[in-house]
Amino acid sequence: MKLYDSTRAPGPRRVRIFAAEKGIALDLVPIDLGKLEHWTPEFTKVNPWQGIPALELDDGTVISETVAICRYLEALQPEPHMFGRTAKEQGVVEMWNRRIELGLFTHITNAFRHAHPAMAEREKPQVAEWAEVSRSRANEQLAVLDKHLADHEFAAGSSYSIADITLMVAIDFMRLPKIAMTEDMIHLRRWHAMVAARPSAEA
Amino acid sequence: MKLYDSTRAPGPRRVRIFAAEKGIALDLVPIDLGKLEHWTPEFTKVNPWQGIPALELDDGTVISETVAICRYLEALQPEPHMFGRTAKEQGVVEMWNRRIELGLFTHITNAFRHAHPAMAEREKPQVAEWAEVSRSRANEQLAVLDKHLADHEFAAGSSYSIADITLMVAIDFMRLPKIAMTEDMIHLRRWHAMVAARPSAEA
Repeated sequence: MKLYDSTRAPGPRRVRIFAAEKGIALDLVPIDLGKLEHWTPEFTKVNPWQGIPALELDDGTVISETVAICRYLEALQPEPHMFGRTAKEQGVVEMWNRRIELGLFTHITNAFRHAHPAMAEREKPQVAEWAEVSRSRANEQLAVLDKHLADHEFAAGSSYSIADITLMVAIDFMRLPKIAMTEDMIHLRRWHAMVAARPSAEA
Repeated sequence: MKLYDSTRAPGPRRVRIFAAEKGIALDLVPIDLGKLEHWTPEFTKVNPWQGIPALELDDGTVISETVAICRYLEALQPEPHMFGRTAKEQGVVEMWNRRIELGLFTHITNAFRHAHPAMAEREKPQVAEWAEVSRSRANEQLAVLDKHLADHEFAAGSSYSIADITLMVAIDFMRLPKIAMTEDMIHLRRWHAMVAARPSAEA
């Protein structure tokens, strides 16, 4: 299996961490986003949506979209479970993964894409007002998640899951749009230190 | 199981169709979004995110987020499979469901929420420029999906899945922001007529 990858984008990092937690080795193929390699005719043949990560299976099938790749890996090798085990766990993990994606990650991404000079070429048009609204919503959501983590060890349910990966990568990506956890977010900070200490965080 | 529901919002409709395809009966609890019933203290106790749909299990657990509820129902009653069966099918269904959500549905929703007078109270601030960018991206994506459906019977894989529900509900919701399939999108129109004829479409 080949993973079209970049060390600069958050999506591929989510997949690398997910695979590391499961002990699955992926053949990494670097795509240089700065040189717009994801827009070349060669890569467009791999993924017509021109996005990374994309996983190419040995039969030539390409699965794109971060969470779709993780779902494939989960079905291929269920242990350790990263999407929950029982029906209720599966629902709760999906719920938190989506709350974190839609409530926080999307806003962080938009605060970056619609305001950062490095994205001027790739995000047309940049909507400055949307970047500001997104920044404000991301900050609100950080406070909500800090409160949630006051009485939860992990982002979803009682063990480490894909929701923890999504949240950690989102928080680490905030550096680019200059969004930060405030000093008083002690629960979110406790949780972040814990997940960042796992060996997979370096993947 | 109680589903907090509204006939006006697309999320609950996705869940009702999903449950109908599986023959699962849900106890529907109507929430009047026009009267902001989802913002009341009573409903905020049910779902602190103040969103519908939300599924309340018999043990009191609440699962919110449309796809999380569908995941729970899929695990509870796997047949007929709506998220794919094999690892590859599961990856492909998740990929298309996300492409349709992120590439089309989100843009339709934003074209509506950030421009429609009926949303002025609920979407603050409305960013008019973002509504226009979203409208343009939705139109682009419709053309891409029309091309995809030229040689695919269903939205993902070889049978009806959650991706078909997401796409049908997205297209039907375009009425509000006045986005439409063009006459020449014959494949998308063929596909839409097919899925809209299923009894579940009335759920």
